[in-house]
Amino acid sequence: MPSWSRRHVLSLADFEPWEYDTILQTANSFREVLSRRTKKVPTLQGQVVTNLFFEPSTRTRSSFELAAKRLSADTLNFAPGSSSLTKGETILDTAKTYLAMGTDLMVIRHQESGVPQAIATEMDRLNSGVGVLNAGDGQHEHPSQALLDLFTICAQLDANQPCLELLQNKKIAIVGDILHSRVARSNLWSLTASGAEVHLAAPPTLLPQAFADYVKDTPLERKLFVHWELAPALQNADFVMTLRLQKERMTGNLLPSLREYHQQFGITRDRLQQCRPNVKIMHPGPTNRGVEITSDVMDDPEMSLIAEQVTSGVAVRMALLYLMGGAKS
Amino acid sequence: MPSWSRRHVLSLADFEPWEYDTILQTANSFREVLSRRTKKVPTLQGQVVTNLFFEPSTRTRSSFELAAKRLSADTLNFAPGSSSLTKGETILDTAKTYLAMGTDLMVIRHQESGVPQAIATEMDRLNSGVGVLNAGDGQHEHPSQALLDLFTICAQLDANQPCLELLQNKKIAIVGDILHSRVARSNLWSLTASGAEVHLAAPPTLLPQAFADYVKDTPLERKLFVHWELAPALQNADFVMTLRLQKERMTGNLLPSLREYHQQFGITRDRLQQCRPNVKIMHPGPTNRGVEITSDVMDDPEMSLIAEQVTSGVAVRMALLYLMGGAKS
Amino acid sequence: MPSWSRRHVLSLADFEPWEYDTILQTANSFREVLSRRTKKVPTLQGQVVTNLFFEPSTRTRSSFELAAKRLSADTLNFAPGSSSLTKGETILDTAKTYLAMGTDLMVIRHQESGVPQAIATEMDRLNSGVGVLNAGDGQHEHPSQALLDLFTICAQLDANQPCLELLQNKKIAIVGDILHSRVARSNLWSLTASGAEVHLAAPPTLLPQAFADYVKDTPLERKLFVHWELAPALQNADFVMTLRLQKERMTGNLLPSLREYHQQFGITRDRLQQCRPNVKIMHPGPTNRGVEITSDVMDDPEMSLIAEQVTSGVAVRMALLYLMGGAKS
Repeated sequence: MPSWSRRHVLSLADFEPWEYDTILQTANSFREVLSRRTKKVPTLQGQVVTNLFFEPSTRTRSSFELAAKRLSADTLNFAPGSSSLTKGETILDTAKTYLAMGTDLMVIRHQESGVPQAIATEMDRLNSGVGVLNAGDGQHEHPSQALLDLFTICAQLDANQPCLELLQNKKIAIVGDILHSRVARSNLWSLTASGAEVHLAAPPTLLPQAFADYVKDTPLERKLFVHWELAPALQNADFVMTLRLQKERMTGNLLPSLREYHQQFGITRDRLQQCRPNVKIMHPGPTNRGVEITSDVMDDPEMSLIAEQVTSGVAVRMALLYLMGGAKS
Repeated sequence: MPSWSRRHVLSLADFEPWEYDTILQTANSFREVLSRRTKKVPTLQGQVVTNLFFEPSTRTRSSFELAAKRLSADTLNFAPGSSSLTKGETILDTAKTYLAMGTDLMVIRHQESGVPQAIATEMDRLNSGVGVLNAGDGQHEHPSQALLDLFTICAQLDANQPCLELLQNKKIAIVGDILHSRVARSNLWSLTASGAEVHLAAPPTLLPQAFADYVKDTPLERKLFVHWELAPALQNADFVMTLRLQKERMTGNLLPSLREYHQQFGITRDRLQQCRPNVKIMHPGPTNRGVEITSDVMDDPEMSLIAEQVTSGVAVRMALLYLMGGAKS
Repeated sequence: MPSWSRRHVLSLADFEPWEYDTILQTANSFREVLSRRTKKVPTLQGQVVTNLFFEPSTRTRSSFELAAKRLSADTLNFAPGSSSLTKGETILDTAKTYLAMGTDLMVIRHQESGVPQAIATEMDRLNSGVGVLNAGDGQHEHPSQALLDLFTICAQLDANQPCLELLQNKKIAIVGDILHSRVARSNLWSLTASGAEVHLAAPPTLLPQAFADYVKDTPLERKLFVHWELAPALQNADFVMTLRLQKERMTGNLLPSLREYHQQFGITRDRLQQCRPNVKIMHPGPTNRGVEITSDVMDDPEMSLIAEQVTSGVAVRMALLYLMGGAKS
């Protein structure tokens, strides 16, 4: 396997299969570290990981912060609320300030698509050697979430050797607000790359005809299937990934009511009967219990991988920071 | 002495005397560590202590954070402002997310009574092994504050061997808003358990007749005395614990005016003449200077134990995290 | 050189030349540490550095936090938003609470002039041994910023041995809102102490006649020159320090318009022709691009020392915490 050379992780669009496998293997070894009583390794001792979360998120920031601390890095957190941004500083100037302070790796979340890419370009232009990790940008991508989803699925299929080819011919359903989900967008890249069959299900307002047209006559056509009802997506599925229904979409008249959405696309124990016997359910969190998924499915330890996703998240983020940190030198 | 087996510290209601003594002894050894130049011990290296402060508090959170860091733990802070809670996630789901990330000990503050207990129950149901420490829930309890008060008093009586029985026959006055104080509630358990005589003083709106009736004909009757004026509580008292007067109580018409409250229940140097010669004054902070206590009493190093309480707080919280961390394995 | 004995750094008004040189030398050795892959030293292991930022600032707080972490100190951050201050606690009581928790060094920013001094006086009155560092108080002083400016200039003149006398006969222009700038105020002390010629340029509303009158007939008269236009300040300048134009000044009718300000006092490549050939441009950040300075000047690596200032900031703050920490024992 080639050695890791990608300094930034901004999108999964151009990821090679061996890159996925490198992340899966590295995360698996860190997953093992996390089960020990002393969960730290000295890999990034003395390095600085800065979380620039222009869009606030306690959950994802905590996951990255813990990953960095377990690699023995020092962490800085940028909080937009009390920041220079309100004083008119540009985003690139903020990033350059943290670069000048001695940041080695930047983890960036922003409500606008493309901000992490813009910062990465600037970091390269300055020959800074700093790696940039996209922790969610607008409706564009959220690669570390898709990679932890991938790890969770692969580790479920083979806990000792999670790798991409385990997904060959598996059927994976993604249900919900595909249109606005950066998680779904990143997942499409990783899952179709794996040779899995990916079935999308959502109301047409959240999964437009244009999307189906776009896929047609491309290599994706045989891997990606679009449905405007739930049943054909769930039929014989091995994994069902539900997406968070952002309630603010309602105001845009994209949805009739939460109750109606639940009736048509909510994941219930009953509907999961159509899936494979050992079907596993996933959700990126935070969940709206009783809307996109019922509580009894979510809390069933035989079915739900939701807690496993969170745990995998720390291991996958350790792997990313570790690989990017190594690519630097 | 038996070895510590309590995984959660949620309330002092069922604490055994030997448990108090174990905490006092352990805190005393950490108190000694804190006086060294290098104030750290490696006890919780690699462990994760998560502060889930749904009700914000800089002071108490800083105390727990410092206690955890001095035990060499990694700390995560959950800030409700920018959190998934605003996205509709339940409190238990938030706690389970931090569990899945790898939290070993959770320190929880919430404006509603019972939340730490509910999270502890869920942690046990999941066989997580995680310990939960109640850092203040509604008007219910605030055990670590009562334990640091206890430690402060006992260490005052015998700095080398603080233990519960030192309080036998001591008279302790608690003055102020008993009704709404979780600190007072926890203190009642620890102080009456010690064999001290506890005298409460407050206006009837903050210390209802019903409370006095409740105590009557119980074993508490000989240890706990209710007064609706200050003088009999202060008479020959060894320690006077003043409580913070929450100004927001005024809006509920529970108090005529701050000035009138101060005239009747404010602690002044003059009134303390009725106490024992070496009486010590305590306050959980933050204080309203000139309301529940005058500045000259508060700032008198011969009388005031307020700074000592804060210092003891770090040692007692180290002891709690240490004992709970050990109970885990 | 005498050994460092200053416990607090509150103002540069009474700094001795050897003190500047001690800071410059110490910062230079830390600057070297920062260029290593492992950027930590164990100097303040087990010590607690508390950032009390009553006025929020992500940038300066991050710089101090990183400096403390690289000296291996534990850090506490006080956030006024969710604090006891809103519960009516006094500033001194907040500081004393953090003292009682075990703080060794306090870094204080406050919107009112004199608060760090008041806290330092209280810390001394209590014989606490705690050192207080003023991280910006009102319109009074911001010594660590002026010291990092000094270090940046001196290191530019001699990277191996930055010292005060390198500034002898250098011409330094300070342009902008002198009146309201605590940075400018601190810089005046350090730069005039060095033997440099300091030229101030600003519109009269931001640099009153009274200021010029004040200087007259003092020893400063031969070192400090006041101009109400830009050209004479830039003429043959070796360094040009631009100040941030606080947009909120506009509401006070102190400025006609941003555009007009830029036309008269904005730093452009064209105007810099009047300076020495190798003139360097500085700015304390955050900048208003296109107002006090044009983007092309700011981003020109041959001219701009802005990133260098940020990097020096961490080294200078490490030096200050190190020296103050040593002065303690």
